[in-house]
Amino acid sequence: NPRLNPTTSNPPTPPTDHRALAQKHELFITSPYSPGSPLLLPNGAYIFQKLQAFLRAQYPQFGFQEVITPTIYKKSLWEASGHWENYAEDMFSVQGRGATGTTENAQVGQDEEFGLKPMNCPGHCLLFRDEIKSYRDLPIRYADFSALHRNEVSGSLTGLTRVRRFHQDDAHIFCRPDQIQEEIDQTLKFVGMVYDNFGLGPYKLLLSTRPKDHFIGTVEEWDRAETQLKTVLDKSGRHWDLNEGDGAFYGPKIDIILKDSNGKEHQTATIQLDFQLPQRFDLQYQASPLELETGPAPQAAGSLDAANRRPVMIHRAIYGSLERFMALLIEHYAGKYPFWLSPRPAIILSLNQDEKVLEHVSHIKSVLSGLKAKRNPDKAGPLPLSATHLPIDTDTTARSLAAKIKHARAKKYNHIIVVGPKEVETEKMQLRLASQPNPEQAVHKLKQILPWQVNESDTT
Amino acid sequence: NPRLNPTTSNPPTPPTDHRALAQKHELFITSPYSPGSPLLLPNGAYIFQKLQAFLRAQYPQFGFQEVITPTIYKKSLWEASGHWENYAEDMFSVQGRGATGTTENAQVGQDEEFGLKPMNCPGHCLLFRDEIKSYRDLPIRYADFSALHRNEVSGSLTGLTRVRRFHQDDAHIFCRPDQIQEEIDQTLKFVGMVYDNFGLGPYKLLLSTRPKDHFIGTVEEWDRAETQLKTVLDKSGRHWDLNEGDGAFYGPKIDIILKDSNGKEHQTATIQLDFQLPQRFDLQYQASPLELETGPAPQAAGSLDAANRRPVMIHRAIYGSLERFMALLIEHYAGKYPFWLSPRPAIILSLNQDEKVLEHVSHIKSVLSGLKAKRNPDKAGPLPLSATHLPIDTDTTARSLAAKIKHARAKKYNHIIVVGPKEVETEKMQLRLASQPNPEQAVHKLKQILPWQVNESDTT
Ligand SMILES: [Zn+2]
Ligand SMILES: [Zn+2]
Repeated sequence: NPRLNPTTSNPPTPPTDHRALAQKHELFITSPYSPGSPLLLPNGAYIFQKLQAFLRAQYPQFGFQEVITPTIYKKSLWEASGHWENYAEDMFSVQGRGATGTTENAQVGQDEEFGLKPMNCPGHCLLFRDEIKSYRDLPIRYADFSALHRNEVSGSLTGLTRVRRFHQDDAHIFCRPDQIQEEIDQTLKFVGMVYDNFGLGPYKLLLSTRPKDHFIGTVEEWDRAETQLKTVLDKSGRHWDLNEGDGAFYGPKIDIILKDSNGKEHQTATIQLDFQLPQRFDLQYQASPLELETGPAPQAAGSLDAANRRPVMIHRAIYGSLERFMALLIEHYAGKYPFWLSPRPAIILSLNQDEKVLEHVSHIKSVLSGLKAKRNPDKAGPLPLSATHLPIDTDTTARSLAAKIKHARAKKYNHIIVVGPKEVETEKMQLRLASQPNPEQAVHKLKQILPWQVNESDTT
Repeated sequence: NPRLNPTTSNPPTPPTDHRALAQKHELFITSPYSPGSPLLLPNGAYIFQKLQAFLRAQYPQFGFQEVITPTIYKKSLWEASGHWENYAEDMFSVQGRGATGTTENAQVGQDEEFGLKPMNCPGHCLLFRDEIKSYRDLPIRYADFSALHRNEVSGSLTGLTRVRRFHQDDAHIFCRPDQIQEEIDQTLKFVGMVYDNFGLGPYKLLLSTRPKDHFIGTVEEWDRAETQLKTVLDKSGRHWDLNEGDGAFYGPKIDIILKDSNGKEHQTATIQLDFQLPQRFDLQYQASPLELETGPAPQAAGSLDAANRRPVMIHRAIYGSLERFMALLIEHYAGKYPFWLSPRPAIILSLNQDEKVLEHVSHIKSVLSGLKAKRNPDKAGPLPLSATHLPIDTDTTARSLAAKIKHARAKKYNHIIVVGPKEVETEKMQLRLASQPNPEQAVHKLKQILPWQVNESDTT
């Protein structure tokens, strides 16, 4: 029923578009039943999870702790955060179908409306304020990969870039005002490390400062924060521009603008200071002796206890939307994924269908994929969490080798391995590199993994 | 506002209740803003993710491929699957707040209602039918850790066991009728491997068969499937009971009933055959020559092409709800988590606050946690995905050692490590085992990790 499917009615796209490449690599599908919420096929989920795992592996050294927070919260939370009013158009509302009207034995508030979360911030504020924190406990850094929903008009939805449901590598840092500089410094280093790893760049930094008229907090607070941000930006050695007066009313921010291979600019990472939510959620920490000495709490603090201070909240994302970042990488690599990220690192083709050949194919597959050849599957123990598994495919159909190679090339496998009677006899294999960004390194790596000799055919 | 919070108004619970233990270990909190959706603190998220990672590490050897699917689907999908009608009371409905009424330039169906998914099955059917499958492609096994929502009455909500939002280690196997036996056999092996790993058990197996009156499919289909299930159960060597006629109208099932340390029974894993959804979603595969020989497609197949057959769908979960399984493990281990799962594997206490002592504490922490001591943090490269990180804590406050040890014991750290001037001088450390299920093994492991001598104090 194509009239229900907004993503299939788009005009044809150039071949490098992430949607065309994604189709070739079987990364995701769209459905009229879930406009703006693509369904990730195994290959797409594989890339998604590698991106997630890569960032997770870096979190401890940067002091981030992951949390898992709800998808729906009562309307009253979104009213407290201001989203219900200010973000109304973008939000989805949720109601229990069995709990409308008066429910027998229902608790007060049973029938209250819920909001499907467009952001994680309010939930993280609830976590922060659960226990009274001391100035010594700060910074506290909560990371969260939750699914988020924002209600875009259906006509604008496309692929992985304009969606209604997405995941951010979201995190919130709760810190003392005097810790802002160090936190921003570390975050920019984190961004640099990640973008370097993917060979992305160059990117520029854009600082948006206090708006002229409408802002919360004191001018002194803003000045102090902005000075810290500028110091870090100067120190970063990267080009940065000033967007004077363009900050949100609740705090200054730094945007990271990435230029892709076509020269197109993308706003990916973002670092946003927030003086507002700590106030709305009445977040406090026990002030340090130094903070108590240097005078009373700032006036904007409202109901604050004299011995306490408000933390600053920093919203930050490095990938931004994982879906959008994936789209960017799909175009960036154009099928030549690095080995660790590739959903199709290798395929093994059988020259014929002899039993011995098929056995050798299966043996190579189990070695390359990282699974031990199961001698007694009934007694196989669990694999450790650190086990790496590569999704190695095989083609043992009766087609000709030429047809199989053509098919494997079309599917952009990084390596094509051919196994026939000669390979069985010599316990070797023929290797062709098809779509590998760094062939020499790949062969070197394979030679380390494999217990036998590799013959390279240079037929790329 | 306690009247809004159904989970805090419960009667006091015995000390081994997972809620009491979870509070001590800071695993999760509940909030009046999200009844039935607990917020997992870093320690709880840590356990959750280890459970997830453990299962993920096993998926390749059992042939499961992970997919990522939407949270909300249009009402029409749930009508197609039958959930909108048959599961109404348990479902949440979703609507765009900005897209109600007539939206300018809106597409047809723009304002349609959505359902918040209570199950992954319909989404996996969409993935299956995206491309025409051959009999050779089967079985296809999709795994999915998505958050699910079911609208329980708020009065019944408690901790991690009675919730509205949870995650399953959900998977659906699409296979040929003749593959049922092998798939069930493998699934029971998978269950055994996982439960053994956690030291859970004994458990019994319960087979529910065709109901007398109301069922779909032919008696022959049911008989063939049930015979395969019984064969596997007999072969399993485990005790199993028959629940005659107690199957769902859409297929027979096997429930796994686990007995906990208090003798209480829990239904955790489940394996459910389904002849219905493949029909509702018109799932087909190109039949094998053998299948075509053995006669026409079964009558129940409806609109089926003559050369095609319907796959059987198997719903299966091994943990069941991850939240409920966590609750079970929390009580099962009562704080004595195995090392790999423990959110508090070790704490390092400083005997005083001398600079050299604090440096040694920091050094031991970085070695034990798996992070290299950062000599030049500016040039630190990314850590590999396979890097293991342990959340090692420190206590360098000015309190007395006795007070610190008391505190660490209360928090159930598996290891307590004491560092003072003597340890700095000799480059050693004092180790106390506090809550370790297998102390000898733990010391052995630590000795392997640590580059220096370990002195054990037997003060457990
Ligand atoms: Zn935020
Ligand atoms: Zn299911």
